[in-house]
Amino acid sequence: MIGSVRRLAAVIGLLAVSAVADAQPLPSWNDGPAKQAIVDFVAKVTTEDSPDFLAPQDRIAVFDNDGTLWPENPLPFQLMFALDELRRLAPDHPQWKQNPVIQAALDGDVAVLKKDLKKSLSEILKETHAGTTVDEFDQRVRDWLSTARHPRFDRPYNGLTYLPMQEVLAYLREHGFRTYIVSGGGKDFMRVWAEDTYGIPPEQVIGSMGPLQFEIRDGVPVLARQAGIDFIDDKEGKPVAIHRSIGRRPVAAFGNSDGDLAMLQWTTMTRSPSFGLIVHHTDPEREYAYDRDPASSGKLVTALEQSEQQGWVVVDMKRDWKTVFETTAASDG
Amino acid sequence: MIGSVRRLAAVIGLLAVSAVADAQPLPSWNDGPAKQAIVDFVAKVTTEDSPDFLAPQDRIAVFDNDGTLWPENPLPFQLMFALDELRRLAPDHPQWKQNPVIQAALDGDVAVLKKDLKKSLSEILKETHAGTTVDEFDQRVRDWLSTARHPRFDRPYNGLTYLPMQEVLAYLREHGFRTYIVSGGGKDFMRVWAEDTYGIPPEQVIGSMGPLQFEIRDGVPVLARQAGIDFIDDKEGKPVAIHRSIGRRPVAAFGNSDGDLAMLQWTTMTRSPSFGLIVHHTDPEREYAYDRDPASSGKLVTALEQSEQQGWVVVDMKRDWKTVFETTAASDG
Ligand SMILES: [Ca+2]
Ligand SMILES: [Ca+2]
Repeated sequence: MIGSVRRLAAVIGLLAVSAVADAQPLPSWNDGPAKQAIVDFVAKVTTEDSPDFLAPQDRIAVFDNDGTLWPENPLPFQLMFALDELRRLAPDHPQWKQNPVIQAALDGDVAVLKKDLKKSLSEILKETHAGTTVDEFDQRVRDWLSTARHPRFDRPYNGLTYLPMQEVLAYLREHGFRTYIVSGGGKDFMRVWAEDTYGIPPEQVIGSMGPLQFEIRDGVPVLARQAGIDFIDDKEGKPVAIHRSIGRRPVAAFGNSDGDLAMLQWTTMTRSPSFGLIVHHTDPEREYAYDRDPASSGKLVTALEQSEQQGWVVVDMKRDWKTVFETTAASDG
Repeated sequence: MIGSVRRLAAVIGLLAVSAVADAQPLPSWNDGPAKQAIVDFVAKVTTEDSPDFLAPQDRIAVFDNDGTLWPENPLPFQLMFALDELRRLAPDHPQWKQNPVIQAALDGDVAVLKKDLKKSLSEILKETHAGTTVDEFDQRVRDWLSTARHPRFDRPYNGLTYLPMQEVLAYLREHGFRTYIVSGGGKDFMRVWAEDTYGIPPEQVIGSMGPLQFEIRDGVPVLARQAGIDFIDDKEGKPVAIHRSIGRRPVAAFGNSDGDLAMLQWTTMTRSPSFGLIVHHTDPEREYAYDRDPASSGKLVTALEQSEQQGWVVVDMKRDWKTVFETTAASDG
């Protein structure tokens, strides 16, 4: 009786949602093969008498973040945050003048940082945030997000998510999917705003991680950030992180670079039904255009080459997206 | 409108569940301060006009496994599994005669293994399972669980969960809590049976982890287990793993040893409302009796000393539990 009340309640909820959502799915997508592929996939795995029907617990979709849900230019936004933090804290750290990476960052010498973006980010985060507690770090991200603006688009960074991808996130959730972020970016950085910005709760945000130490400071238990990197959630690390965090294989994966190749393979190869999608940046007017030789992160060669054989959908941003960004800028929470 | 239908549906479900469940909460617990403390805590955090009311997303409860949800004698059950695997695979590995830990395990020389249980387990798992895929490992655990029986109680191992703790898990979930396992045991070992045995899905099972490698073998993507340990989810590691996996602080923690001290502190210190509970093994007739000097794992000294000052509930198994094990043995899935 308890079970049946619950099931009935769930059915009422799902019916109401589906009826509204399916009238006009994905309105910011132009009609075409990419949009159709998304709609077809969702239909076949959620139709009860379909051979491809998936039980709700198996409806798991994973999304890369930088370049897939929001831009990664002129630099990945977490690196923009770290650079702003560096400038904010520099007056108290005269010793930074002896550190070539930090000094390059302060001088705006982006070429030096780009030689190894991940190493630069790690070095800058170490200098700015090692020793802070996770709560303090969280507050710093919040403070930054409420004041910083993107240099080209002049909006808060979390006002620059891709509207078509926001629609995909919502569309999947309306059809019983759980949506996860699986990003090379820092897990703790993304969790601060992912729930407000994407509707993705902290336990569904997977990312790179630095070491943490449990301490009791003046009677208060804290987790203190330590220097270094424990886990890089990129390339072959993505399937590992997915397995560890979720414990089930996803059936849908969305990415934009070779950093997502292993995640796309893990999600789709020798699996049916499954779905893979690559966002190809082809729109320098409204956003950016890059693949083989990106100005920032996001190199895309092998995944694009494999896309046809693997049946992955390649989104041509310029052609497939009616709108790129939401018209009103988001503010932080 | 969608939101309100969903909320209504959720309310219908919760009301129905509460009405049934609260008639006779925790029937396998004797009346007394431990049972009362659990019921009082749940009541105050789920009563809407209470100053201690918690929103559903904050109702997170974490449970140690060995010695808290099932026994850890004569050895932690994962080590029993590993020893059985060793015996099963020994005929194909004559070189094991040169490995002192493996040879001790094969000879049943438990004293040698107990010098460092975690190191022994790691060594045995490396020899038996390194190179296997996560799916193959999963199947081996399943096969073992369907045939192995506990030497004292002569039941399948997953038929030996503590009925009073199963009732706590269900009671919390009926009141909107999410229940997590946070165990020193292997995450992949526990996930195989945790959903059937405890109703806890894989993404809510947190544990120790070995390195994994993504590979494509003959066109099939796999995650292959590597030798070694990446993360030990014990002591100060527990709050770290909780933060990484959940991203929110729990409000209730259940453990049985000093390995749970940091998790209890992280959950309850300087936090209100919060709840901590220690299972004290005091019942050699029905289960086991140990704290300071356990025959297996489960040393309990500091957490017991701090319990009064911290307000943690100490369960006296002999006095507080009407029944220890379910009367019918569980079978595996
Ligand atoms: Ca990307
Ligand atoms: Ca324990």
